[in-house]
Amino acid sequence: MADYQAPIKDMNYLLYDVFKNDQLWATLPNLAEHVDRDTSEAILLECAKIAEQVIAPLSREGDEIGVSFDNGNVTTAPGYQAAFQTYAEGGWTALGGDVNYGGMGMPKVITSLHEEMLCSADISFSLYPGLTAGAGLSLAKHASEEIKQRYLTRMYNGEWSATMCLTESHAGTDLGMIRTKAVPQADGSYHITGNKIFITAGEHDLTENIIHLVLAKLPDAPAGPKGISLFVVPKFLVNDDETIGTANHVSCGSIEHKMGIHASATCVMNFDDAKGYLVGEVNKGLACMFTMMNFERIGVGIQGLGAGERSYQNALEYAKDRVQSRSLSGVKSPDKSADSIMVHGDVRRMLLNMKALNEGSRALSLYIAMQLDIATYGEGDAQSKAEKLTALMTPLAKAFFTDLGLENTVAGQQVFGGHGFIREWGQEQLVRDVRIAQIYEGTNGIQAMDLLARKIAGSKGEFMQIFIDEANAFISATTAENMQEFIAPLKVAVDDLQKTTSNILSAASNNIEELGTSANDFLHIFGYTAMALVWAKMAEVSLAKVSEDEAFHQSKLHTARYYFAKLLPRRLSLMAAINAGAEPLFNIPDDLF
Amino acid sequence: MADYQAPIKDMNYLLYDVFKNDQLWATLPNLAEHVDRDTSEAILLECAKIAEQVIAPLSREGDEIGVSFDNGNVTTAPGYQAAFQTYAEGGWTALGGDVNYGGMGMPKVITSLHEEMLCSADISFSLYPGLTAGAGLSLAKHASEEIKQRYLTRMYNGEWSATMCLTESHAGTDLGMIRTKAVPQADGSYHITGNKIFITAGEHDLTENIIHLVLAKLPDAPAGPKGISLFVVPKFLVNDDETIGTANHVSCGSIEHKMGIHASATCVMNFDDAKGYLVGEVNKGLACMFTMMNFERIGVGIQGLGAGERSYQNALEYAKDRVQSRSLSGVKSPDKSADSIMVHGDVRRMLLNMKALNEGSRALSLYIAMQLDIATYGEGDAQSKAEKLTALMTPLAKAFFTDLGLENTVAGQQVFGGHGFIREWGQEQLVRDVRIAQIYEGTNGIQAMDLLARKIAGSKGEFMQIFIDEANAFISATTAENMQEFIAPLKVAVDDLQKTTSNILSAASNNIEELGTSANDFLHIFGYTAMALVWAKMAEVSLAKVSEDEAFHQSKLHTARYYFAKLLPRRLSLMAAINAGAEPLFNIPDDLF
Repeated sequence: MADYQAPIKDMNYLLYDVFKNDQLWATLPNLAEHVDRDTSEAILLECAKIAEQVIAPLSREGDEIGVSFDNGNVTTAPGYQAAFQTYAEGGWTALGGDVNYGGMGMPKVITSLHEEMLCSADISFSLYPGLTAGAGLSLAKHASEEIKQRYLTRMYNGEWSATMCLTESHAGTDLGMIRTKAVPQADGSYHITGNKIFITAGEHDLTENIIHLVLAKLPDAPAGPKGISLFVVPKFLVNDDETIGTANHVSCGSIEHKMGIHASATCVMNFDDAKGYLVGEVNKGLACMFTMMNFERIGVGIQGLGAGERSYQNALEYAKDRVQSRSLSGVKSPDKSADSIMVHGDVRRMLLNMKALNEGSRALSLYIAMQLDIATYGEGDAQSKAEKLTALMTPLAKAFFTDLGLENTVAGQQVFGGHGFIREWGQEQLVRDVRIAQIYEGTNGIQAMDLLARKIAGSKGEFMQIFIDEANAFISATTAENMQEFIAPLKVAVDDLQKTTSNILSAASNNIEELGTSANDFLHIFGYTAMALVWAKMAEVSLAKVSEDEAFHQSKLHTARYYFAKLLPRRLSLMAAINAGAEPLFNIPDDLF
Repeated sequence: MADYQAPIKDMNYLLYDVFKNDQLWATLPNLAEHVDRDTSEAILLECAKIAEQVIAPLSREGDEIGVSFDNGNVTTAPGYQAAFQTYAEGGWTALGGDVNYGGMGMPKVITSLHEEMLCSADISFSLYPGLTAGAGLSLAKHASEEIKQRYLTRMYNGEWSATMCLTESHAGTDLGMIRTKAVPQADGSYHITGNKIFITAGEHDLTENIIHLVLAKLPDAPAGPKGISLFVVPKFLVNDDETIGTANHVSCGSIEHKMGIHASATCVMNFDDAKGYLVGEVNKGLACMFTMMNFERIGVGIQGLGAGERSYQNALEYAKDRVQSRSLSGVKSPDKSADSIMVHGDVRRMLLNMKALNEGSRALSLYIAMQLDIATYGEGDAQSKAEKLTALMTPLAKAFFTDLGLENTVAGQQVFGGHGFIREWGQEQLVRDVRIAQIYEGTNGIQAMDLLARKIAGSKGEFMQIFIDEANAFISATTAENMQEFIAPLKVAVDDLQKTTSNILSAASNNIEELGTSANDFLHIFGYTAMALVWAKMAEVSLAKVSEDEAFHQSKLHTARYYFAKLLPRRLSLMAAINAGAEPLFNIPDDLF
């Protein structure tokens, strides 16, 4: 496997040249205090070092050896303890945290890029701090001051880690059905009893305590999702003097054997009258959990990008090195026994698909992260619009980038030929590791329904119209002759997106099942169109700056042209499938499947 | 995992109702002697039994434990020895073999269906007899009478197995670069020296001898592919009295650790002055090897179908059983805590994609297998046309069905949600096992080039025109009113296929790179169009027979409509990508990737 090299140059290009985040930060007082261009450039450089030098080297052995389970204890993969310590000491566990409790208060655009680097290095490793950061967001927003002082500070400093305990064996997507019980105690705490599955980092040896965020139901709770409450349940209770106390009644029953992310401990967690503390209000637990969802779901989307980027770097190195057969248009390397496989059109197709989709995903994920930053730190109309755009585009980020992550890692494996199937080369691990990202944190099918039913139909199209208006504003404003090769197809795609949206909403008013049957195809149409918008923005910047760095910007421009020529047309088939409606799926009775 | 149930009913429907193979066989004297409808129905029933009851139960443990290597010896997975013995005693190793040497002489349509069942049961297991059958084809056609009597008879009866030793570490796709040497000896034999990698079943404990078919070069051989000869190199030499003699200088250096097919021994094979016997003529080895390619490549394609079918059966059972959330259009199972996930449009989409693509692949693979049977056993113009159609459609079968195999197994895994990622459920194994089928036996990129450059451009479009003429003949002849919902879109697709073909050939006359850049997209356009043809043929039969078996034929008709509505449109995006030409791939210099 090639040594991972964090794409810092592309990241800075997006942050400052394309999306001008430094100017944005300056307008948002709560961000301007903590971050500016110099700070963030330094952070990304340091992050690249730790990802490249400390974390990436753990990935292969982590896959081979994985986590092990013995009598309730989980041992992490070789090197994980030392790496986590280095990571925590570097302050990375605090990166996006609330500054009032020891966090660094970095915007989502920075934490996103940090997440991409971690995921390129080793998705399994990224999950331990990733879950803690997500849980921290929920606590920062909803927990009492006491809980924040006690738990959040030590999650930020890396002493403790955290989990999200949602899923039960019979209740995954449908959390309304959970059976875990929370019984109020005289001291104001609760006794939590139940079994949770698929709990990432539920048990491990990286931190001295593990703080579980657990969804449970009070005895008199209403049925369904409106009866769910959220609790903090520490592995070890904490004494009044803040020292670690006795073990809570929480145990890890087993760990799962999985297709990938072998170094991530996926635990069955048993709570048996475990002491827990309410977060937020009774029966409002789902809302507290969803606070972190916009952050986490973008983060899971970025796992797709991280794996895709790593696979591309490996595939490109291999393709340049591997000689096999001759170019169709004549010998290119007469001094060698064969030409490099870079000469073959189909190899270039695979590599350019990866490059265009990775760079497009990075740009689009930053666009979305930036909306989240404005939603979090902005005010007035801009804040409100950004909040709606974030709501609209979060499920897109999660599902689209992870679907592309699978496609890209499969392509990167294919470039290797037979060697791609052999474990020691590392390409197949990326396929196995990224595959879960399409499933967890809400399957991609659920994301598509969240997008189309909740966000678009739920807002009667308003949220989508905000995106379309913004895209049209860019199209109208971009009149330069040399941009028309991008603007013309972008305009067609945006117009089609608008028509498709209103067609679906109109069809759904007659048959609500149109939403479910179109959701996946629609999400991808939206994805390719939104990616076209950010590719056009990149093209505009690179056309203007080409003389400053010919190689970098020409590469961008070629890749932009490739995207418009070869990838944006994917939306055509998806539109045709949507136009065929819901009937072909619902006319067939279940027993004829 | 659901118990595998071989889709015998669908197989017989295709064999007799749709493609009328019984009538075909009666017209081909060399087939008519050995096979008729009664025989083949009995064979498929017996095959289903062994696949369902003997082989399928080995698959999970075979994945977990796999093959092991110790000091040159390979131990197969638990149960493999007993299962192989049962399989060989049942005569299955002789199924497609030459009747003059103990084979059963069954047509490819029957061996294809047998292969599908084996692959649904366990792709790893299927490879041991699969390689032997393929090697047998090459020996039957090209080897001397002595070699056939000595080796072929015992490959057919299952005493011995065989391999294909082509790839070297520096020479995969480009076999012209191989370095393995064959030095002529005074006794007419050769001494073979070299190292081969990725040798499936190169060493194992299932048979008493292993017959390696090895590509090597004589000392004075011309450079490149025209200097390659084919040799039989047995693991153990055979005495004149036909008893097993001393060990040949062949050894297994190691086995690969792979993403999937863990129970298949993928070996590094070292030949060190090993005694070998020439097959066919000196320097004509590639042609001898390619004899088996049409058979083997269809077989690898069928691995995609086998895995996809298994994944579908599992996913359907899971989807019917799993309850989660409520239908968009109102509660469907008020007595349950939630509705079965079959109510959700996106789950139906995944299942119907799988069902339509699997049944379409089965039909199309039989159509192609039937062409191969006519090419092998027919005569005159029909034989000649079938030979060309086989040449045209073999790379299609290999690449299209394996690409769909990955898509379908990923979809079947997705239906399971989180459980799809857990090994014990078996769905993720199918993804890992089928992934190699896109790579070995010539990567799918190579198949696409074989189709477009060698078969289509190489015949100046003639081979494709044969397919198009046949499709148009069906379209013209099918005038029934109730068939027009299928015929009208089929006609559009066939016309587009013809236009796209001639556009590419015309563009390639200016820029030969158009072939390489369009090959993959073109292969898939051809695949979806050819699949539309066989779906239309199935629809015609099922419309006529619907009263005989309402459930079966209505299921076919609904699935046909789903295919035309939702899947055939995939060709639209592919056409748009092809129309964008080769420039976006070749304008970008290598150092700007």
